[in-house]
Amino acid sequence: MKLRYCINYLLTISQHEVFQTFFSRLSPYGITPGQYGVLSCLWKNGPTTPKEIARALRLENSTVSGILDRMQKQDLIDRVVDPNNRRSILVIATPSAMAIKDDVLKVVDELNAEILQDFTPQEKDALMESLRRIGRIDEEE
Amino acid sequence: MKLRYCINYLLTISQHEVFQTFFSRLSPYGITPGQYGVLSCLWKNGPTTPKEIARALRLENSTVSGILDRMQKQDLIDRVVDPNNRRSILVIATPSAMAIKDDVLKVVDELNAEILQDFTPQEKDALMESLRRIGRIDEEE
Repeated sequence: MKLRYCINYLLTISQHEVFQTFFSRLSPYGITPGQYGVLSCLWKNGPTTPKEIARALRLENSTVSGILDRMQKQDLIDRVVDPNNRRSILVIATPSAMAIKDDVLKVVDELNAEILQDFTPQEKDALMESLRRIGRIDEEE
Repeated sequence: MKLRYCINYLLTISQHEVFQTFFSRLSPYGITPGQYGVLSCLWKNGPTTPKEIARALRLENSTVSGILDRMQKQDLIDRVVDPNNRRSILVIATPSAMAIKDDVLKVVDELNAEILQDFTPQEKDALMESLRRIGRIDEEE
């Protein structure tokens, strides 16, 4: 089999290409693509448990914990005790994270449009739906 | 934007899912998906320069050098002087790498078929072509 017919090769190369673009274009805002993933959950859902973040981003709880530690040091998130359940921790976006929200969302919209600019709406929908099937990404995300 | 409409999120999640499957299913042969990429070049093209391998796998020369060091220790590849150009190094597959070739190629074929088993031939072609466009993967690979 030629590499160009191998789904792992195709996903790895295209993911790398797109990730690098996101990485450079998000860096002026002091965040990585993974940190954008966390902020996206918080911006959309408000205070969120680390477990919910891990589920949305398909990461191990321990990995999310490390990402959150770093984001807390960068003053992007804070961890607070859930007022409804004192044994549970909620992650919240800090004012600094709220301050970059509109700009970051705009950049992400632009990046998606740019990366898929040569795709027809049908091709774009088909690609996204295929990736959701492969990644088993459910309706909620 | 919901994460499910973000191309970086979709590629990252689906790549991770497929990579993990390749990783586990190749491990009985003592190789990683990246090492399969290298072997695939050697099995297809015979002796190959490290630079050509880097180009095919879209890796930095220094990254390929590290991968090759490890593969050489594992007796999967060897580095030889190019008989036609004494200043150039060629990477060759060792007899141990040749010994696993048929089994590995069979597993990779099976994995591709399994991962895309719910896709029609048209959906499969469209997905692969879209990923090639995003990854700028040319005819040669």
